[in-house]
Amino acid sequence: MYRRGFLRCPLALAASIAVVLPAIAQPNPMPSWNDGAAKAAIVDFVQRTTTDSSSELVPVAERVAVFDNDGTLWTEQPVYFQLAFALDRVKQLALQHPEWQSREPFKSIIAGDMAGLAASGQKGLLEVIAATHAGMTTEEFSHTVADWIAKAQHPRFKRPYIDLVYQPMIELLAFLRSHGFKTFIVSGGGVEFMRPWTERVYGIPPEQVVGSSGVVKFVMQQPDKPVLMKEAKVEFIDDGPGKPVGINRFIGRRPILAFGNSDGDQQMLEWTAAGSGPRFMGIVHHTDARREYAYDRQSHVGKLDKAWDEAVRRKWTVVDMKTDWNTVYPFEKQ
Amino acid sequence: MYRRGFLRCPLALAASIAVVLPAIAQPNPMPSWNDGAAKAAIVDFVQRTTTDSSSELVPVAERVAVFDNDGTLWTEQPVYFQLAFALDRVKQLALQHPEWQSREPFKSIIAGDMAGLAASGQKGLLEVIAATHAGMTTEEFSHTVADWIAKAQHPRFKRPYIDLVYQPMIELLAFLRSHGFKTFIVSGGGVEFMRPWTERVYGIPPEQVVGSSGVVKFVMQQPDKPVLMKEAKVEFIDDGPGKPVGINRFIGRRPILAFGNSDGDQQMLEWTAAGSGPRFMGIVHHTDARREYAYDRQSHVGKLDKAWDEAVRRKWTVVDMKTDWNTVYPFEKQ
Repeated sequence: MYRRGFLRCPLALAASIAVVLPAIAQPNPMPSWNDGAAKAAIVDFVQRTTTDSSSELVPVAERVAVFDNDGTLWTEQPVYFQLAFALDRVKQLALQHPEWQSREPFKSIIAGDMAGLAASGQKGLLEVIAATHAGMTTEEFSHTVADWIAKAQHPRFKRPYIDLVYQPMIELLAFLRSHGFKTFIVSGGGVEFMRPWTERVYGIPPEQVVGSSGVVKFVMQQPDKPVLMKEAKVEFIDDGPGKPVGINRFIGRRPILAFGNSDGDQQMLEWTAAGSGPRFMGIVHHTDARREYAYDRQSHVGKLDKAWDEAVRRKWTVVDMKTDWNTVYPFEKQ
Repeated sequence: MYRRGFLRCPLALAASIAVVLPAIAQPNPMPSWNDGAAKAAIVDFVQRTTTDSSSELVPVAERVAVFDNDGTLWTEQPVYFQLAFALDRVKQLALQHPEWQSREPFKSIIAGDMAGLAASGQKGLLEVIAATHAGMTTEEFSHTVADWIAKAQHPRFKRPYIDLVYQPMIELLAFLRSHGFKTFIVSGGGVEFMRPWTERVYGIPPEQVVGSSGVVKFVMQQPDKPVLMKEAKVEFIDDGPGKPVGINRFIGRRPILAFGNSDGDQQMLEWTAAGSGPRFMGIVHHTDARREYAYDRQSHVGKLDKAWDEAVRRKWTVVDMKTDWNTVYPFEKQ
């Protein structure tokens, strides 16, 4: 009788499933992770902090998990994807800037001469940022990013850049959220470069994305029509010691779980580790040149050196991409 | 049979209530609001934007509502409560600073001479902020605020400051949340002054509080024990044109509803109004000297002049505290 009554009310059934699910051990959460120390450590941490009867139960409001983006949630080789975006924009905008044909660093970029671009150093890079990330409204920039991300292709994989997200990390984000965690991105990348697509790709809404930013200015463009203009001035670099600062400023709560992949994440991991109660610190180690890339101490992009030593010393979880992940990209499953 | 089966499953029942509730018109949401144009405009806006069959339905993810704090969610007279906190701190810290007895602006503060403090101007105020809001870790500051807010009393009402929140606005926040809105504070006040108590008092968690901030610095105080030190340097003023900037930086989405009470909220209201689709802009007008305070165009605290004119011109909702609210403070109901 109980079952018959219950089945007659699909709404009650659906609602109950939604309520009960997180409490039931799922058969295999995170199927793209091989069984091993890394996966076991993650599952153990989540169980200890979210099981009602656990002595280490963490209140839902404090289940804050932060993730670096480049190299942690998606690929960052051969160059940060935001740099690829900026270079594509320079080539596109060159039509309106004939003077760029003879002016560095634009001349090198148009010629596809990466060594020439590198030679222009920090100053050249700031000119590229100014030319591609400023002098427009926040809405115009957002549309430009959305347009690029829909069309541009990665040079090696010949696929849109958002295809190059890590399937195991997507599963980890979902696993955490199904256990009451709130997931945040804390990236050195530009916050306005990420927000147009993070919700769709990672399930992380704009207000949970922390990143680097440039100055924006409120301007009344026409009567009753204000805009926010992006200026060619760096406001905040959310990298290295800037990551705990960004976490404090945007989230205002210390995370209990943090995942990164490079020395730029070291202070975020240290800040997470320094809280009281259960903590989880993880690092993605890029060891798979065949399926993705292999790099660490010597890499110009995503250098992993000091943070790796600290992870070993403090027994943080180091994920070996080659052995811990049976799938790297979602398209491998298709 | 249906009912018996249903009743035998309290979990299903509880879950269904949670699911069904938002869809049922509540008998009287916001009982502390008198029936009138302001309440009608709010209820109408929420129904138009959240009813499934409405042509103006707004997706849940975009139901962002922002609220100024001082004078909009709690009282701001006779001085901003954060200033009262700073002055109390100066008196407390004076024991460790004998030199303050003869140094302005501290001398005036210790003597309770507000005219003397005012005479020290902007420079004096920055010295007060430096002495009371910097030179300590973020955690130490947070504990200091929590301690003060639990003990300090408002000079007129002889009650803790957090008793002086507006009951009608608490009800409005809850009403919005029950309809899928995410509620944010966007205040000129210090973000680290608000976060220790906003969740408990308003149901707004730290990560949904946007405010002014000082520079903080990551410091490895002892091996593996990093702290964030608060420095005596202003980083961001979340007021006036800074409010849309803060909304863009922290939330990354344009609100569809905004509530303020002073000229410092004008640009936030304009930014909210300039989006497409249904919008709600509201202003609390302080008209009740008996139950709270009455002030607008001439006030030093919470001046409402230009924003009021714009509200009238653009038909934004202006709440008349005296006639629109049958209750101001929660303690009146006790």
